[in-house]
Amino acid sequence: MVDTERKLANGKTRIDFQTDPSLYRHWKLAVDGDVATLAMDVDEKGGLFEGYDLKLNSYDLGVDIELADAIERLRFEHPQVKVVLLRSGKPRVFCAGANIRMLAGATHAHKVNFCKFTNETRNGIEDASEASGLRTICAINGTAAGGGYELALAADHIMLIDDGSSSVSLPELPLLAVLPGTGGLTRVTDKRRVRRDHADFFCTTEEGVKGKRAVEWRLVDEVVPGSKFEEAIRQRAQDFAAKSPRGHGAQGIALKPLKRERASDAVEYSTTSVTFQRPERLATIALRGPEGAPPANADAMLALGADFWPLRLARELDDAILDIRINELDVAAIVFKSCGDGERVLAYDAFLNANRRHWLAREIAHYWKRVLKRIDLTSRSLVTLVEPDSCFAGTLAELVLAADRSYMLIGEREADNKPPAEIALSEQNFGLYPMSNGLTRLASRFLADPAQVDAAKAEIGRKLDAETAERLGLVTFACDDIDWEDEVRVFLEERASFSPDGLTGLEANLRFGGPETMESKIFARLTAWQNWIFQRPNAIGDEGALKRYGTGQRPAFDTKRV
Amino acid sequence: MVDTERKLANGKTRIDFQTDPSLYRHWKLAVDGDVATLAMDVDEKGGLFEGYDLKLNSYDLGVDIELADAIERLRFEHPQVKVVLLRSGKPRVFCAGANIRMLAGATHAHKVNFCKFTNETRNGIEDASEASGLRTICAINGTAAGGGYELALAADHIMLIDDGSSSVSLPELPLLAVLPGTGGLTRVTDKRRVRRDHADFFCTTEEGVKGKRAVEWRLVDEVVPGSKFEEAIRQRAQDFAAKSPRGHGAQGIALKPLKRERASDAVEYSTTSVTFQRPERLATIALRGPEGAPPANADAMLALGADFWPLRLARELDDAILDIRINELDVAAIVFKSCGDGERVLAYDAFLNANRRHWLAREIAHYWKRVLKRIDLTSRSLVTLVEPDSCFAGTLAELVLAADRSYMLIGEREADNKPPAEIALSEQNFGLYPMSNGLTRLASRFLADPAQVDAAKAEIGRKLDAETAERLGLVTFACDDIDWEDEVRVFLEERASFSPDGLTGLEANLRFGGPETMESKIFARLTAWQNWIFQRPNAIGDEGALKRYGTGQRPAFDTKRV
Repeated sequence: MVDTERKLANGKTRIDFQTDPSLYRHWKLAVDGDVATLAMDVDEKGGLFEGYDLKLNSYDLGVDIELADAIERLRFEHPQVKVVLLRSGKPRVFCAGANIRMLAGATHAHKVNFCKFTNETRNGIEDASEASGLRTICAINGTAAGGGYELALAADHIMLIDDGSSSVSLPELPLLAVLPGTGGLTRVTDKRRVRRDHADFFCTTEEGVKGKRAVEWRLVDEVVPGSKFEEAIRQRAQDFAAKSPRGHGAQGIALKPLKRERASDAVEYSTTSVTFQRPERLATIALRGPEGAPPANADAMLALGADFWPLRLARELDDAILDIRINELDVAAIVFKSCGDGERVLAYDAFLNANRRHWLAREIAHYWKRVLKRIDLTSRSLVTLVEPDSCFAGTLAELVLAADRSYMLIGEREADNKPPAEIALSEQNFGLYPMSNGLTRLASRFLADPAQVDAAKAEIGRKLDAETAERLGLVTFACDDIDWEDEVRVFLEERASFSPDGLTGLEANLRFGGPETMESKIFARLTAWQNWIFQRPNAIGDEGALKRYGTGQRPAFDTKRV
Repeated sequence: MVDTERKLANGKTRIDFQTDPSLYRHWKLAVDGDVATLAMDVDEKGGLFEGYDLKLNSYDLGVDIELADAIERLRFEHPQVKVVLLRSGKPRVFCAGANIRMLAGATHAHKVNFCKFTNETRNGIEDASEASGLRTICAINGTAAGGGYELALAADHIMLIDDGSSSVSLPELPLLAVLPGTGGLTRVTDKRRVRRDHADFFCTTEEGVKGKRAVEWRLVDEVVPGSKFEEAIRQRAQDFAAKSPRGHGAQGIALKPLKRERASDAVEYSTTSVTFQRPERLATIALRGPEGAPPANADAMLALGADFWPLRLARELDDAILDIRINELDVAAIVFKSCGDGERVLAYDAFLNANRRHWLAREIAHYWKRVLKRIDLTSRSLVTLVEPDSCFAGTLAELVLAADRSYMLIGEREADNKPPAEIALSEQNFGLYPMSNGLTRLASRFLADPAQVDAAKAEIGRKLDAETAERLGLVTFACDDIDWEDEVRVFLEERASFSPDGLTGLEANLRFGGPETMESKIFARLTAWQNWIFQRPNAIGDEGALKRYGTGQRPAFDTKRV
């Protein structure tokens, strides 16, 4: 059950991440040849929760769910599109950022999950450019404040109208005593590479920066007089389209609605079953391998579209993870299981690898990359149980490597004739799915000894039994049937007994050894500080800035620096 | 005034970071040829605050102040020492970590400042090895729990006695619901490069890991039976000494007590004056340039010892920063000023550069590096005012570059015949003082355009007036006399009006654009999460783990994951 202190405006008890353009209330997606326009036109009365209006194109999670959906659809349904124009459907305002009344009334958990999802969405916009050549141009026709400017920062190119008043700003600190936490600070320093003292000025100035200074300080790429704004946008779209490697007549596939049935303690998808053991605070996600061989060729894959097993599984898994994150706050651990034929999973990986230059195969690989990153960033203990009849092979083996801990059963179970558990690796495990730190899960795992990555690579395609997998360092513990039940039960019980907050911090550290990237900095340096501030009375107390904003009363601060 | 909720055990009202071996209560430093032994033997009754006993070699800030002092003295007073043996002066216990009752009763600000300083001390141990070849061997003769093991992690080599019971552990999460936040998690993943699932097991297991597994999992470098422990330590010390580039008969210099006089609103050092404008929540640190030319040669520098101006200034500045950090929590901004002859500062830089292979010149450079890093990590707004008669040249120009914002006065002041403000750069600004992200302050500043670093380098030794400095991007704003007063006053007033927490998070992000290192990860990913947890009821609430530890009552957790 979502966020108990507020009611969902639609009368439901869960937040749903599935939508499609026919259901959008806040965005208009229009495709014209190789240029799409994604216009933000937020319905004031369309807030996800009761209790606030979404004025001035301010947004809440519901608005961002539509945005995330639109970006995915551009990637799969419109492969001919090379440029997306991100703009406002309202005059003289681009976007006022996250809705402040929504934030002021949200639980801590909702604020944190809201920021995580909006960050993933903005990273997704950048991934669309980097991985697929889908460039984003942001055209700012008025105020772009806070989250509004942070959205612009995700674009490849930012255009600001030069009308003497339109500006970009990050007024979170002076107005609300919080940070521009949806990537804002990190993109200002690491993407736009704004000089730190300019950034300091910018982030402490309510009214922001406009005109020439906005360009000189690298906050936007160009300012354009109002009379020439539309023409300049058209021109820039042409320029970027001309340089994009995307498109060339490809036909998209429809991202059909997921098959999904919900019962009180379970969710059933076509390839995935989620079961909740609420007294034990566990969610088990069981994945099913493919039922047959991969299609004969790329055309057959295209014809299958969203029914193609790897895509179907990835979409269903993503939905399951998002659902648990925001609707099942009491779940301590997610247990991954699988059943099916590992050889067939490898056959699909081989098929995708053979067709890796096909746009759809490439999009599916990048989609898996994003789903796996979402799992890495999920604030729940991740446990993978590799049992007889499982199919953790190739792409699915990433769920063994993504786990905080994995257990693999040695041999057969008594009174059970299923074949012993095996795992297998494929080419996919060695580069296709980097974590947000830029390394593969295997490279992250074997930071101490890269030769272990090579040793694993030498095993590509081989079936590895539990003892071999343990010896290669691919699973944490190999256990025999006698110990298995107790070992796993005691571990999961213990996990549920620990402080949920302590585990959140622990896992956020242990999962990301080694280098950091701009993306990982957003979820570490920026997010962790923001979460700290989201606990501080100076922001959220009755006299804090977030609570007092708009009341006419100034916040009262505890002046101690810590 | 320090931490208002607790009384200092010595009856004073401020924490003092100055000490020397004759005053140590918790450590014994013994030097024997090229090997020093630093033995931890904490005086139970020697806690910094009233209200707890430091049992089992547990520590508080007072213990760590002595450790930090001992490491500095080994670097300056004992340049012949190549190896320091870090061990316990108590039987069967190495160190039980940070004192839990101290933590449970400390204010949030004290916890945060305590962790920051202890982190800097451990980074200092590693810097002594990397920069000066002073290797640390940690010999663990019993329990090394939590902060005890984190201390060991700072060593180059960890030896664990193999007696069937001695172990290393990070029980913070299971016992206290907090993180191993003194570098523990980051050093486990990034220095020891422990596999993430092993790290997960280790950090969730109260009793820790011992014997062979501790070596296999890379938690220690060797386990040695008790009967052979002393001999093995001796042997390892010899091995490491043989490979250290340090020593070769150098004679040390004495780190004499600082000259320091404290008044109610000021602290006066020999080269530095600190004045507090408490109503405005400002501390001004004014640095004085050298009174004469540098010494004739390295021997003359040695003879001056701690009186040598660059070392004297660095030590005094460091003490001033630490004092403000922990004793003046209400200070919002530190304003750096200077007066003196910039040419003379450059002459000292040139002298140190000419003697850069001399051990003392090298140690002084590394000391400045650490002081400047401490400033970068100081949670106060940093402002540098470059005015007539100032001497922000070379090394001192780093204080312009370290500032969140700097103002430089154009021309002379009316009714004042001091020469116009100038700054200047030296070789020292281009590599000697990296920030914790591994880049120089100039490289961090000009991430967007490294050519600006080259342009600055071309100006080495030249006097740069305000407009030139602004054009080169070295100062934020150049202002003339008419605007100066208002500009600076309004800025400082505004700064003091913002949320102190918001500024802490903002500055922690904007100061560290670009890459991260293990060191910077400790202060970002790890510390920010730990600070978040230090606010959470699951740790610090009346039913939280930190409060209930030792009471026999189990903590009661809010089970929601966020």
